[in-house]
Amino acid sequence: MKIALAQQNYHIGNFEENTRKIIAGIHQAKAAGADLVVFTELCVCGYPPRDFLEFDDFIAQSYAAIDRIREETDTIGVIIGAPDRNPVREGKDLFNGAWLLYEKEIKGVAHKTCLPNYDVFDEYRYFEPAYEWKVIPFKGKKIALVICEDSWNLGDNPLYRVCPMDQLIRQHPDLMINISASPFDYDHDEDRKEVVRQNVLKYHLPMYYCNAVGSQTEIVFDGGSVVYDANGNLIHEMKYFEEDFAVVPLPHPVPPLYEELLPGLSVRTDVDEEDNDGPAVPLQKMGSSTAVAPSVFDKDMRVSKQNDPDRVLEYLTDERNIGQIRKALVLGIRDYFSKMGFKMAIVASSGGIDSAVTLALACEALGKENVRAVLLPSAYSTSHSVSDAEQLSRNLGNPYDIIPIREVYDALMHTLEPVFKDSPFGLAEENLQSRARGNLVMGIANKFGYIMLNTSNKSELATGYGTLYGDMAGGLSVLGDVYKGQVYALARDINSNGEIIPHNILEKAPSAELRPGQKDSDSLPEYDILDKVLYQYIERRQGPAAIAAMGIEKAMVARILRLVNTSEYKRNQFCPIIRVSCKAFGVGRRVPIVGKYLS
Amino acid sequence: MKIALAQQNYHIGNFEENTRKIIAGIHQAKAAGADLVVFTELCVCGYPPRDFLEFDDFIAQSYAAIDRIREETDTIGVIIGAPDRNPVREGKDLFNGAWLLYEKEIKGVAHKTCLPNYDVFDEYRYFEPAYEWKVIPFKGKKIALVICEDSWNLGDNPLYRVCPMDQLIRQHPDLMINISASPFDYDHDEDRKEVVRQNVLKYHLPMYYCNAVGSQTEIVFDGGSVVYDANGNLIHEMKYFEEDFAVVPLPHPVPPLYEELLPGLSVRTDVDEEDNDGPAVPLQKMGSSTAVAPSVFDKDMRVSKQNDPDRVLEYLTDERNIGQIRKALVLGIRDYFSKMGFKMAIVASSGGIDSAVTLALACEALGKENVRAVLLPSAYSTSHSVSDAEQLSRNLGNPYDIIPIREVYDALMHTLEPVFKDSPFGLAEENLQSRARGNLVMGIANKFGYIMLNTSNKSELATGYGTLYGDMAGGLSVLGDVYKGQVYALARDINSNGEIIPHNILEKAPSAELRPGQKDSDSLPEYDILDKVLYQYIERRQGPAAIAAMGIEKAMVARILRLVNTSEYKRNQFCPIIRVSCKAFGVGRRVPIVGKYLS
Repeated sequence: MKIALAQQNYHIGNFEENTRKIIAGIHQAKAAGADLVVFTELCVCGYPPRDFLEFDDFIAQSYAAIDRIREETDTIGVIIGAPDRNPVREGKDLFNGAWLLYEKEIKGVAHKTCLPNYDVFDEYRYFEPAYEWKVIPFKGKKIALVICEDSWNLGDNPLYRVCPMDQLIRQHPDLMINISASPFDYDHDEDRKEVVRQNVLKYHLPMYYCNAVGSQTEIVFDGGSVVYDANGNLIHEMKYFEEDFAVVPLPHPVPPLYEELLPGLSVRTDVDEEDNDGPAVPLQKMGSSTAVAPSVFDKDMRVSKQNDPDRVLEYLTDERNIGQIRKALVLGIRDYFSKMGFKMAIVASSGGIDSAVTLALACEALGKENVRAVLLPSAYSTSHSVSDAEQLSRNLGNPYDIIPIREVYDALMHTLEPVFKDSPFGLAEENLQSRARGNLVMGIANKFGYIMLNTSNKSELATGYGTLYGDMAGGLSVLGDVYKGQVYALARDINSNGEIIPHNILEKAPSAELRPGQKDSDSLPEYDILDKVLYQYIERRQGPAAIAAMGIEKAMVARILRLVNTSEYKRNQFCPIIRVSCKAFGVGRRVPIVGKYLS
Repeated sequence: MKIALAQQNYHIGNFEENTRKIIAGIHQAKAAGADLVVFTELCVCGYPPRDFLEFDDFIAQSYAAIDRIREETDTIGVIIGAPDRNPVREGKDLFNGAWLLYEKEIKGVAHKTCLPNYDVFDEYRYFEPAYEWKVIPFKGKKIALVICEDSWNLGDNPLYRVCPMDQLIRQHPDLMINISASPFDYDHDEDRKEVVRQNVLKYHLPMYYCNAVGSQTEIVFDGGSVVYDANGNLIHEMKYFEEDFAVVPLPHPVPPLYEELLPGLSVRTDVDEEDNDGPAVPLQKMGSSTAVAPSVFDKDMRVSKQNDPDRVLEYLTDERNIGQIRKALVLGIRDYFSKMGFKMAIVASSGGIDSAVTLALACEALGKENVRAVLLPSAYSTSHSVSDAEQLSRNLGNPYDIIPIREVYDALMHTLEPVFKDSPFGLAEENLQSRARGNLVMGIANKFGYIMLNTSNKSELATGYGTLYGDMAGGLSVLGDVYKGQVYALARDINSNGEIIPHNILEKAPSAELRPGQKDSDSLPEYDILDKVLYQYIERRQGPAAIAAMGIEKAMVARILRLVNTSEYKRNQFCPIIRVSCKAFGVGRRVPIVGKYLS
């Protein structure tokens, strides 16, 4: 049996375009002589469809698209992902379904059991978990068909009380197929392949794992679909960060081990009394978008670096992570623009490292001719700010303008004089400059149809070091999930084949240049310390005592956590951030604005 | 047995203050001779704690607070809500717990079964649903202790597959106690009492229902705790929108009906085959924050108005709804300021209806001396704009300034001349004016420590009729969940004891005044039609065909839905909106930004 995997990039709610792509994939698979072609989770409507799923009309359109696709399945089996109405009175309205279509008929629909409902995921908001499991017969083989998270319930720290493959294995399937929409993060990329391999080793079955690719607002799906044989050998791996297609023959079967396996299954239908006497399990159980339990996977090196405050910066900026982050950000920018129907970006270019890296990545994603830089010097800008930013755009070859903000700032100050009177220069005046810049850039954006890219980094966003409607303006944040230290590493990566970002930009001390001689370090801890603490607090959810125990001064920890917790209201008004870590600000981190915790 | 209900207003994560309040409530109950005092859901940490629950440190602080409260329970039973660690390996880390403390011991913890995970709720993100149910003995009585949504699984359209009271009734409890954090919306207020009554009638037991009060960023809890006797009589009802306390003796028992009840229970542990042959259930199953199934409750009048496009405006603006909305908005403003530690608000006062109502509500919430109005006339402002806004502030007695934007606008235009050249006046120039206003108001806010209140209404936000960083700026949206027609009704309510909002403001045609003679109706459909369509689409999630079938022109429906779906990126950067409807923009409505559905 020949099985094709179609790793495609979908557009949420764009049934016409998604259906066209799926049908093109079917034709390609037919032409290659495949018996079966596998697409990805919720490919018909795009993933994540979020609250569109609550509209009957949206579901009806999805069903109509399935009907169109079904017409193409005369001679080939097709596995697609789409919501399935729940016919039973009790429970949520929908299941997250994997549909096998063949001979123009629906041969079976498997429902997702393990519904991720953490970080960026909200699947239990919409879907009823499966409570029945049936292998689906196809051309003499029995397929154990599961969806994404369904394969992640391994290890000694499971998020769910049911493991669907433990149910399906009792029906003696011949192979496992998993359709996924599993997003990228640099903490996570190794885990996915390892999870597939662990499933294969546990169940002694080959596994076809087809993952989505493409960016959906903030979430980047990186593809990397794989096929493993029943012995745990990787027999095919698909491209990362781009669409791909392959036909992989079903590997030679190994002797079935079902009976031997059965006694070892850890299916939990009720709770033993003794469990309740056990010690409390630490928080942060792990699902497919976070790391899996370290005891399952051999990634001790990475885990030890993440835990070791002296090595965490080394981990955050290591070459492999940075290379992947760069690819994710470029795809994130490109898909945001193409799917929103935009072509041109505008960036406020300050001569600092953040705007330089943003500009370079934007040029990489959209083409230099589609990225306009605006230099907005003020009375407090140093002379090198303008010359460095000019040099950067000359290196990149993108158009730029120099628009001094002095006249606007003076008009603001003059207009406010009757109210401000002779109060001393302070934060309000700094913010006025930043907002004057935001206003000017948005003016050009609105006039000519640019989308403003935001240049704030994760360290600034975490601490609230930014001006709402000023430097926090923009339609998409490129670096909002990238710590300051990682921004430098990205700059070095961008310069690895010759200087694009001028040396001077990499060398100078970071400054907002909103008052004479200002440095970020006047208001913030040094970025080395800051990034270490932020990583432990945000990504690893450590509390103040645990972070201080890593050797960072207690008062410093308290100060940083207070900054994070009192600036939630600013982040709440921030644009979408391309997510590259296991915990980005935005939709995956939901913290009360009005609250008083560590603040 | 005398049972006290303590309906209190908590601060999320403020363990010290919440513990102090709870202990004060215990002392009050002791002084009143109560045997038992009942607090509300997650009262120890505040509701909703959101991702704070993912921090071990936060959970540890909650446990420490319970220990302090326990010390006060020597002679009185105390029921509080707090997260409970899940000791079992499988499943989520926490349960949502109702704790019975007595004699300085933990006598029992009941876990929530039905975890709301729709609209503003994310409980399955954190909590494992209960799968064991035990009545808790206390002074010779058996208490069936449940949490909020647990009592909502009635009707013929249940969201959940398990009903915890159907389990608990088998253990022959003597009374039901429900601790809740059930938010207000004007579509919903009648349902809550009716649900309690339906439970009482179903199980033939008295019920004590204690609900939280107070606003948490966008969610307003309205209190209204109740006690019903076993015959379905309301024997006590507590205040709405404020804290309250009462001691209610346990009503005389009625003859138990447990055995008769048992055969009728609808506990579902598996699925019958025939269910799968049934017709598809329409979407929008209902939980505690949306309406419950109409067949359960006699609210035909309301439902028919909601469905009837000719009567929906009447429903949206009816006096009872508007009176409640006003109370909710005032509480929402007041709690936002007090819990954030702010005192003073600033409002851009345009002479239009939205800013007038916002200003009046702010004065009601914070005191007129704490609310500053800023009038920001431009060249396109009509003369009455300033005079109407001045009259409004004279009526309210709040301070105001007049700050013309001309100089700033001219400076912006002059600065941009080399880029704009001689392009015609358009949207970019309109936005520049709006952002100049935003910049000036934020300047004053930053200088003197005001929080800017946003004045956009729900009709504008829905259609994207607003300028990011301009009139969409602000820290809290007062009217973002109030349709334009409802804003007028609020104005009339505010004027019901004499003119506060000048007559002229109520009479003139809405205009953004960003170009000569501009009217909202140049860009938008008439508000009467707009509000009707928006309500059907947003609150009732009807698709284009269903809305057109209500007698609204198809092209008009398509145009409005396109406006809604293409302006998601704007709302994504908007401040928190005080939620008064069953579907507000913000945390309760999660729609992809990059997508293509009805757009």
